[in-house]
Formats: sequence, structure tokens, C-alpha cells
Amino acid sequence: MTSATDRPDLAAGLRLDGLHGSLSSPTTKSMNFLNEVAQHYPDAVSFAAGRPYEEFLDLESVHRQIDRFAAHLRERCGGDERRVRGTLLQYGRTKGIIHELIARNLELDEGVHVDPEAVVVTVGCQEALYLTLRALRRDERDVLLAVMPTYVGAAGAAHLVDMPVLPVAPSADGVDVDDLVAVARAARERGLRPRACYLVPDFGNPSGLSFGLETRERLIEAARDNGLLLLEDNPYGLFGPEPSEGNPPLPTLKSLDRSGTVVYLGSFAKTGNPGARVGYVVADQRVTGPDGRTELLADRLAELKSMLTVNTSPLAQAVIGGKLLENGGSLRTANSRESAVYRRNLRLVLEGLERRFPAGRRPYVTWNRPSGGFFLVCALPFAAGDDLLERCAREHRVLWTPMHHFYAGGGARRDIRLSVSHLEPDEIETGLDRLARFVSAHDA
Amino acid sequence: MTSATDRPDLAAGLRLDGLHGSLSSPTTKSMNFLNEVAQHYPDAVSFAAGRPYEEFLDLESVHRQIDRFAAHLRERCGGDERRVRGTLLQYGRTKGIIHELIARNLELDEGVHVDPEAVVVTVGCQEALYLTLRALRRDERDVLLAVMPTYVGAAGAAHLVDMPVLPVAPSADGVDVDDLVAVARAARERGLRPRACYLVPDFGNPSGLSFGLETRERLIEAARDNGLLLLEDNPYGLFGPEPSEGNPPLPTLKSLDRSGTVVYLGSFAKTGNPGARVGYVVADQRVTGPDGRTELLADRLAELKSMLTVNTSPLAQAVIGGKLLENGGSLRTANSRESAVYRRNLRLVLEGLERRFPAGRRPYVTWNRPSGGFFLVCALPFAAGDDLLERCAREHRVLWTPMHHFYAGGGARRDIRLSVSHLEPDEIETGLDRLARFVSAHDA
Repeated sequence: MTSATDRPDLAAGLRLDGLHGSLSSPTTKSMNFLNEVAQHYPDAVSFAAGRPYEEFLDLESVHRQIDRFAAHLRERCGGDERRVRGTLLQYGRTKGIIHELIARNLELDEGVHVDPEAVVVTVGCQEALYLTLRALRRDERDVLLAVMPTYVGAAGAAHLVDMPVLPVAPSADGVDVDDLVAVARAARERGLRPRACYLVPDFGNPSGLSFGLETRERLIEAARDNGLLLLEDNPYGLFGPEPSEGNPPLPTLKSLDRSGTVVYLGSFAKTGNPGARVGYVVADQRVTGPDGRTELLADRLAELKSMLTVNTSPLAQAVIGGKLLENGGSLRTANSRESAVYRRNLRLVLEGLERRFPAGRRPYVTWNRPSGGFFLVCALPFAAGDDLLERCAREHRVLWTPMHHFYAGGGARRDIRLSVSHLEPDEIETGLDRLARFVSAHDA
Repeated sequence: MTSATDRPDLAAGLRLDGLHGSLSSPTTKSMNFLNEVAQHYPDAVSFAAGRPYEEFLDLESVHRQIDRFAAHLRERCGGDERRVRGTLLQYGRTKGIIHELIARNLELDEGVHVDPEAVVVTVGCQEALYLTLRALRRDERDVLLAVMPTYVGAAGAAHLVDMPVLPVAPSADGVDVDDLVAVARAARERGLRPRACYLVPDFGNPSGLSFGLETRERLIEAARDNGLLLLEDNPYGLFGPEPSEGNPPLPTLKSLDRSGTVVYLGSFAKTGNPGARVGYVVADQRVTGPDGRTELLADRLAELKSMLTVNTSPLAQAVIGGKLLENGGSLRTANSRESAVYRRNLRLVLEGLERRFPAGRRPYVTWNRPSGGFFLVCALPFAAGDDLLERCAREHRVLWTPMHHFYAGGGARRDIRLSVSHLEPDEIETGLDRLARFVSAHDA
């Protein structure tokens, strides 16, 4: 039997239903729709974009950082200019050239000890996630778990490798560990292989919330006991409350892990420079081959990378390497000004919501109160889907993200995500005024 | 039934046979082996590495090129510094920011007219290839054709999407078009969907050979009639004989295509700067959705890219954009010095082989005579597999690539690939002397 897709008539074009399924997925449609709305209303105040604050970024620093990293290389190889040039401008090491600086950074900022050989530098954290899922998805039985609501990019990477995502329930403290275990068991009973659970334990996207310490510990134990890897994505961890002796940042899952359960996904898009597109994965698990020899999972991920992007631009890595060197290896220090902006913005949005939506008075709007990061979630008194976002953008010139986009294709919901990261105080006030007018107008 | 891989004991490590099949493929093993040999014998003369010549690259130029591109942006947006900074240092357009310069370059250097909107800027050509195959591989019926011997990276990208590669026979003139048609028909009769054929028509890797004009025309016609896309990979096209009025470069498949049959894969690793890791795909085919609306294949590839690497580093793109601007949009001009080096090296290797292996005398060594590019192929009087390469490296300190690596896992063969691109004349003479001693020693 021959159908139209069996033998495409190229003159008449290809057919979408003959291309990979990810192109017809709700996730892809979500991302397209959100981009289109943002492009269509460039003058709107955007609580939608999760972009880092950019007023402290400049091109001069980029040049200086590249030179700083080049000087570091020069020192390391005794002034051999050909080697410096070869490292920065030629094809290079698949696992990257700033792995030692990354290991040092994790030590300084997160208290995590990692073998630099277990680090693979990637084209943003998104490639790190893809490589990990590509390795874990062997056939149609392999599935990923994710705490819902979840980052759209995680669902996207899973789509690319045809890996279904099974939702795990959240809890007030981050994740319902009992549900995680139940979902994994039920999947196994259906003949599936739950391989890993994706999560953002610190100031998560989209919820803004962080997991409690006890939850972190229980999570690692439960994952280990159930043969699940935990894919810990940590782009916002540095942007918490001002650290103090009485109030230290919560430890990452990776720093608590003693059983090889956690694969750590790192991003420099928010802490380094989004224009470099550099991220990484720490994969220090051992993989046993048919001959009984074991090798680092990182080396296996690097093999996949060699077929995908070959290596991460060493010039882009130099920008991040230089920034790390300029700050003694710490990005916490490097981001002190940005952190202050994010804290201020979060405070302004929380206070602004309180002024505009006093408790017990219509319209009934509620919201959570993250202690850091880029995001918070508001529940409106009515379902806030894509149609209403479009109308709000058109009539009120303010953008937000309907939360249903973070539930892998679920229906309309009352909650919306507000992103505070890249706005100035006056934009926040204007945006909240517009949001309040929109909510009042629609609260019939 | 529960097997060991159903519930991995993480403490004991992951098992390779529980991870994605590409990690156990012969291609992956090939690439690993070749890398290991090269690392183990750093003092060997390498006819193995296909790296571009790097003596004309320097970091000063990189800084200048970034600034040049920034100045171009500034001019385009009327001096709006925030927009320049946002474009270079923030998350950006998925399809890239140098698409217009790329379209102009294709016009100038290849005489190809393309819509800049049909260009997706990628992390090297490898990502372009991956995205194209990811789109085309919907299910297990979809297969790729490739002219054998073929570039290892093409087989690698196909592995990542679980797409089998069916070999098409070469001919003296590049590709046996009748075999292409026969392979596609036979596949279709087996219930498979041949989607595309991958090829490098100009100074191909590994053969060094170029397709004749008539073959190019017949190929496009045959592909069109059989509903196959042609994936034209063109990293070496600029490195032909000195162009003259009587001897113009052969037209690319893309420039001959009137039927939307050719997807063009471009690389700046050899013509721009390998350290930027920038390539692109021109995908001007139309894709028809379920609602009958058509959109550019490029836009569908960009959707996949948004789930894979989000966008290509704008700073890395600026390096290539600046180089294009500095050279009036032409990379042919920009590479005149490099082209002269490649021509010289190819001549030195061909003459050197002739002196060391005179016709009709033992050891009987023959070779092809490409008119440009980085590679040529020598047939030795004995099977030249991985074991012999390792021995040659150890005993004679000269590296080459066994051709069996380019046949997707075929057995040992007598032919080897020699790469000439990055060597100096004295290295070429030393390397050929060593090769001759090795061949004589093993020609029992």
C-alpha cells in the first residue's frame, strides 16, 4: 500500500505528517504561539520572557574575557602561542576546554567536588539535557519522569528522542516523593523503563519554588532505590536571598548525592553570558561495557556530542572561562549586581500585587512567594489560556505565560507565570497596572 | 520479566547495553579509535586529521571581526546600542543573525539565490545535518541513502535518530545514478521510505573527488522523480583549482536545482574559523500542515533547533559575520591564501607519491588525483586496517585513515585516506618518507 507520505512529491512540498512527530507536538505549538505573541506586541510590558537582566553586559567585557582566558592558556602551556591559537581557533576537545574552571566553580559556589573529566561542556544547558536523554533512551520502553509543572525545554528534548514524559505531582515542599515512587512502579508494571526524573530544585521554572532540604534527601534515596537518575537542572540557584550565616543557600542535590544518582545540568546563560550559549553536564556515573570495562558516562555523552555539534565553540567557552577567571572562579561574586536586581524586582512584583489585589476583595487573585529566582505564579479568578493572553496583549499591552504550557499539553488553567528578571522598576509598575486592569475587566 | 537493564543498579553503574544503540555502533568505535591513536602519537606526522590550515588564523582578527559585525548591526539599527548589545549578548533569533550575509555569500561565491528566511544558522554543519535528518525520520520505515564511501559524521547523525543508511555505489564520475534509483526502489518495495541521499559533490570527504556536471544534472532529476531530497554538503567547494575563465568551478547541486530537491548544508569551519563552530542549512522546501497552510522547511528545522541548542551563539556568529563583511561577502577572496596552501600541499603529496612509488615497481601503490580539496585516497598492496595503522603510528610515526571507516562498518580494505590540509612542506616530505618505509616493510 502506498500513501502520499511514502513517496513525497517534492514539487508539491513535504507534508508535516510525514515529518518527525515533535514538529506536531503541543509543546512545539506552545513555544511557537508564545514567540508569535511576543513578536506581535513588541511594545507590551513582558512578564513572559525569562531572559536574564542585560544592563550589566557589554561587548568590551567579552573582548577582555576572551583575552583573559587566552592569557590563562598561555600561562598553562609556557607561552606556546601556536598551542594557544590551536586551542581557541581550531577544532577541539569534544568535552570542552573550560572543564577545570567549571569544576573549580562548582567547588566554590556549590560545594560540589567533581572530577573535571566528568564535565562535558555543551551548547547551552539544552544540549546537555538532550545528550543525557539521548543516552538514556534506548527504545520505546524508556520513559522520563518530570515534576509538573515543568520547563518546556525538558519536554522538548524528550520529544526529540521520542521519550514519553510521565508527570510526577508537586508538593508544597517541591515534589511528592511518594508519587515519584508510585509513578516509577506503575510504569515498570506496564513494561516501561523509567530512566530518570527531571527537576529544577532551586527557584524552579515555572513555579519559582525551591525544594526543602528533607525533600532533597528523600528524593535522592527514593531515586537510588528505584534505579532512577535525577537530572538536576540548576540555572537559577545563585539568585536566592542574600546569603548570610544564619541563612545559607540550600545544598544542591548533586552535593548531597553519595550514590551516583544525580546528573547535574549547568547553564551559564543566566550567570555568564547568554550570547555565549555555553552550558555543561556533570556525568560522573560509570558505564559498564560488554567487556566489563567501565568508563565515565561523560565520555559516552561526549561521543553523542561528536555526532551532534562536534564540540562547543572554544571562543564561546573563552568568554565564560574569562569571566570565571576574572571572578576568582566564583559566579556568585560575578553576579552580585544581577542578584540584587532580581531580588529587588521580585520584591517590587510581590508588593505591587499586594497593593493591586488586596486579600478578600474582588478580583480574587492569589500568588506564591518564591524567595528568589526569576519566576512566580499567579492564580487569576478565571481560566487564562492562549486566547486570553492574545487579547490581554492586544487590549492591555502586557504579556505573561499561561501555565498550561508547562503541563505538557494540558487544558486551560487559571494560573499564569510572571517573569521578573529583565524589567526595570517603572516597567514593573506599568505592567502590573495593566495586568490589574485586564483582570478587573475580565472578572465578570 | 525483569532483566538487569530494566532496573539499573546505579551504585553498580549503568550498562552500555542499556543506553542508546549509537553508543555501541561501529561508527562511534571508529571515531574513538582514530582519536585515541592520534592522541597516543602526538609526534607523528598526521595525514589523518582533516583540520583546516591554521597559520593564517589569529585572535586579533577574531576581535576585529566581532567589532566589525557589531558596527554593521549598529548601522542597521540607527546606532541603537541597546539593540546591538541585545542582539550579540542576549538569547536570540533561533534561525540566527547572519542569515542575510550567508544568502549574499551564496550569491557571490556559488551563484545561488536563496531567501535569507530559508537559512538556519547552526552549531557547525553537523547540527544542520542532524536537524535535517531529525525532521525526515518519522518512524522506523524512514531511511537515508548515502554515496559510499561517506563522511563519518553523516552516519553518526543518522545513528542519533535511529535512521539506517543504505549505501549507493560511487562511479568514476561521482555517483552511480542508476544504483541510486535501484536502491530507492528496492527500499520502497521492502516497505521502507527512502527520504534523502547525503552526498559531498565537491572534493568529497573521504575520496577527494568531484561529481561531473552531467552526473549532477542526472542526479537532481533522478532524486526529484523518486521523491528523494538531496542533502548537499559542501565544506570544500571553494578549494578547487585556481578559477579561470576557461575553467570555472562546477555549479553546486543547489544552483542547478529547479525542483526543490536540494537541501544545502554549509560549513564555515574550513572557510571561516573552526573555533566559531558555525554552519547552516538552506531549506527552502515548503511543508504543508494539516490545515493546508505551507511553511518553509527552515522554520520547521528551527523548531527542532529550539529544543536542541536554542540558538547558535550570536558571538560566534559575529566572528563569521565580521569575516564575511571584511571580505565584501565573499569567502573565496577571504581564503585565497589558504586555497594556495591546499593546492600546493595536494601537488606536493601527488608528486611525492609519484617519486616514492614509481608505476610498475614494487611496492604497488596507486592513488587518485583530486583537483582540489583536503583529501586523496591511496590503495596499498595489502589490507590496511586499524591494527596496521596502530603499528604504523608506533613504528613509523605517520598517521592516515583506514578507508573502511567510511563504509559504515565494512571490513578491512587496502585503501587509506590521506589528508593534506594542515601540513607544512617539510612535514609532507617527512610523512611520505615514513609512509614509504612502512609500505616497503609490510609488502612481503
